[in-house]
Amino acid sequence: MAAAMLNAFGGDGGELSQGDRALLGRRAVSMGSAYRLFYERPVHFVRGEGVWLFDPEGRPYLDAYNNVACVGHCHPRVVAAVARQAAVLNTHTRYLTEGVVAYAERLTSLFPAGLDNVMFACTGSEANDLAIRIAKTFTGRRGFVVTELAYHGGTEAVAAMSPSLGRAVPVGQHVRLAPAPDSHNIPRDEMASTFARGVRAAIADLERHGVPPAALLVDTIFASDGIFADPAGFLGEAVEAIHEAGGLFIADEVQAGFGRTGDRMWGFERHEVSPDLVTLGKPMGAGYPLSGVVARPEVIEAFGSRSRYFNTFGGSPVACAAGQAVLDVIEDDGLLANAQRVGTLFREALGHLFRRHEIIADVRGAGLFIGVEVAAAGAAPRSAVLAAAIVNGMRERGVLISSTGPRGDVLKIRPPLVFSEPDVAYFIERLQSVLEGLA
Amino acid sequence: MAAAMLNAFGGDGGELSQGDRALLGRRAVSMGSAYRLFYERPVHFVRGEGVWLFDPEGRPYLDAYNNVACVGHCHPRVVAAVARQAAVLNTHTRYLTEGVVAYAERLTSLFPAGLDNVMFACTGSEANDLAIRIAKTFTGRRGFVVTELAYHGGTEAVAAMSPSLGRAVPVGQHVRLAPAPDSHNIPRDEMASTFARGVRAAIADLERHGVPPAALLVDTIFASDGIFADPAGFLGEAVEAIHEAGGLFIADEVQAGFGRTGDRMWGFERHEVSPDLVTLGKPMGAGYPLSGVVARPEVIEAFGSRSRYFNTFGGSPVACAAGQAVLDVIEDDGLLANAQRVGTLFREALGHLFRRHEIIADVRGAGLFIGVEVAAAGAAPRSAVLAAAIVNGMRERGVLISSTGPRGDVLKIRPPLVFSEPDVAYFIERLQSVLEGLA
Repeated sequence: MAAAMLNAFGGDGGELSQGDRALLGRRAVSMGSAYRLFYERPVHFVRGEGVWLFDPEGRPYLDAYNNVACVGHCHPRVVAAVARQAAVLNTHTRYLTEGVVAYAERLTSLFPAGLDNVMFACTGSEANDLAIRIAKTFTGRRGFVVTELAYHGGTEAVAAMSPSLGRAVPVGQHVRLAPAPDSHNIPRDEMASTFARGVRAAIADLERHGVPPAALLVDTIFASDGIFADPAGFLGEAVEAIHEAGGLFIADEVQAGFGRTGDRMWGFERHEVSPDLVTLGKPMGAGYPLSGVVARPEVIEAFGSRSRYFNTFGGSPVACAAGQAVLDVIEDDGLLANAQRVGTLFREALGHLFRRHEIIADVRGAGLFIGVEVAAAGAAPRSAVLAAAIVNGMRERGVLISSTGPRGDVLKIRPPLVFSEPDVAYFIERLQSVLEGLA
Repeated sequence: MAAAMLNAFGGDGGELSQGDRALLGRRAVSMGSAYRLFYERPVHFVRGEGVWLFDPEGRPYLDAYNNVACVGHCHPRVVAAVARQAAVLNTHTRYLTEGVVAYAERLTSLFPAGLDNVMFACTGSEANDLAIRIAKTFTGRRGFVVTELAYHGGTEAVAAMSPSLGRAVPVGQHVRLAPAPDSHNIPRDEMASTFARGVRAAIADLERHGVPPAALLVDTIFASDGIFADPAGFLGEAVEAIHEAGGLFIADEVQAGFGRTGDRMWGFERHEVSPDLVTLGKPMGAGYPLSGVVARPEVIEAFGSRSRYFNTFGGSPVACAAGQAVLDVIEDDGLLANAQRVGTLFREALGHLFRRHEIIADVRGAGLFIGVEVAAAGAAPRSAVLAAAIVNGMRERGVLISSTGPRGDVLKIRPPLVFSEPDVAYFIERLQSVLEGLA
């Protein structure tokens, strides 16, 4: 499964409307063969609002997948902030501008003391690429440890550390894979030591090959590995291991950051670890391209004193206005507490529903990043087929989710942070209908 | 000079206003040591409109430098398009959306037949990084030829092909440098053969090291090499050479594209060559982060059939709305013809002015990408010092330019494409005052 993209459209579009079939054809002609669409029957959107996306016929889809629209699709405060700033000034970081400094100050104030500098880029891939460059310069090393099905982005350097892209994109010779912290199969009280053992083995293998580790790079919610959050704190021993080996710890918060895991702003905080570098992306500008690297000043200094850094659009006044508006909404609307509260009751409702059906389900995650590993109680269907049937069944019933994990049998549920209790009820009702249809 | 950034602020801010000094300090604390500012006395902007930027005191600066704001700062049609689309839908390419397909069709229609696919990213760095990955997959090779002071971007893979970043960022062992097409020192009728000879030598050296070339990658206006445009057509023989060696030609149009060089949309068209891949960026969304790779479908197919490609923000509905608005303005306002006409009279006026002073100047370029290589007629000052004095003198008189080239003695003049005849007059008047001040 790891080589193919999960939940990718692979048909001929025969089941689509005439209009969508035509659009699909035009898309293939103009955009080529590397793009993928979601779902057995791809979905066409024309409008978004809050937790809803709408197709050309006006049919609503409950968005339980898109973390970029963290404050809800087309949030009026974000739209207004972007429109207002775009009309006034949109230039770059080689001139002094107040907005980028104010945003940098506000953002770094949300991190533990020591993580005091931020550098801006446009995408999570760029943030991870930059963090890798900085870590290599600071340590004078080039080895990296990532998890076995990690995804960190699409630049050449980052793709080489993203085994989830499949065998056609080889992992770099300077990269070693540590087994994911599989909370479904590893006893809770052994998680920290088991994960750290895998990281230590990866470090030792790098050293044996004369490529000592510059850093351990992990997505703190392990999204592509299968979504592993618990027990909180299990990362600590692995972080100790990389530090003992003279490497840095890079927390990839592109997925877990900005309140996604509930009650804390950053995923690494649940583990009470101290990253040397933190990478940010996806929800940071609620769809406006904005990403960043937060780091200890002395780590950046090794890079910055020798190399210069410039990203034409990164940290532009408009990007920073979008970033400020996102933080405003997260704070003013109490979205961390909402993610915590709604996420908890969402997981409870999911557990309750699956228990009533002939499906074994491990419901896990933190805040509003939820994974449900499914398996039929009987022999068939295979767990990945079951997960795909649920994902596509939900799409047919107007709810967006996807799947993840090495076997493709983990439902990936990651709604906007404004997801409410009634949204959960709507989701559960549709899921019940899907599960009944499978019986 | 190549190791240090040209026109970078290196002082302590002592000459700035109290407010700007405070901002500079806050910036250093929150954004760290890798950022650089332009000018001996950095400039602080709060507003932009057309070809003008304004500082906190309302003082106007004529922008003769920023190519991103190609249609002028904060163009109302771009602002409106972004605001309108951001309020309706902003999602990604894994759902069907009409906007991205319509923009992909319009964009590819602006290229010669054969260059029929486009893939979207956010920055020029990402576009070049992706083009590199595609070229490697298509050819099964990993060698690259770039010019000796090339700049192609900031990801790890692209930085390794950007010798202009200086010696702290080493060129990759799989990269060879060809001498720049220095039109100031190479006779016009020998340019094509001289440049091709350098490319062939680089190819031969790669082959000798067992790393045959995947591609020749050049910025078609050679911005960081010193701005070399003429004679139009000189690239042809080098492109033949890379094709004969089994490699691809990647035209980096991040600087030269979207009408910058006047009368043609793309810099490579002046040279009547057929790229296999074309990379786009900077002006593409007039400040909204948007970039792309245009390619022959069969080149993408080799990559796309094995690897998937996804860029969370690349080709989003809002990015494509910005891209459409930029093309609308370029077409409706006749900006290619304007770049050609105003660029020509701008170069004439510059040549005329410099001839009246004790400065030897090679005025060159195409459209509104103008380089002026300066040298004092006497022994002193050094040419780079002279160029820096002009750049900073212009800044003090409210005109923005910068410098480039291996010796830092080429004035880099690259205004928005809406630059007008009165803007040229304003520029020339200020430059005259600077040159008189130097005497």
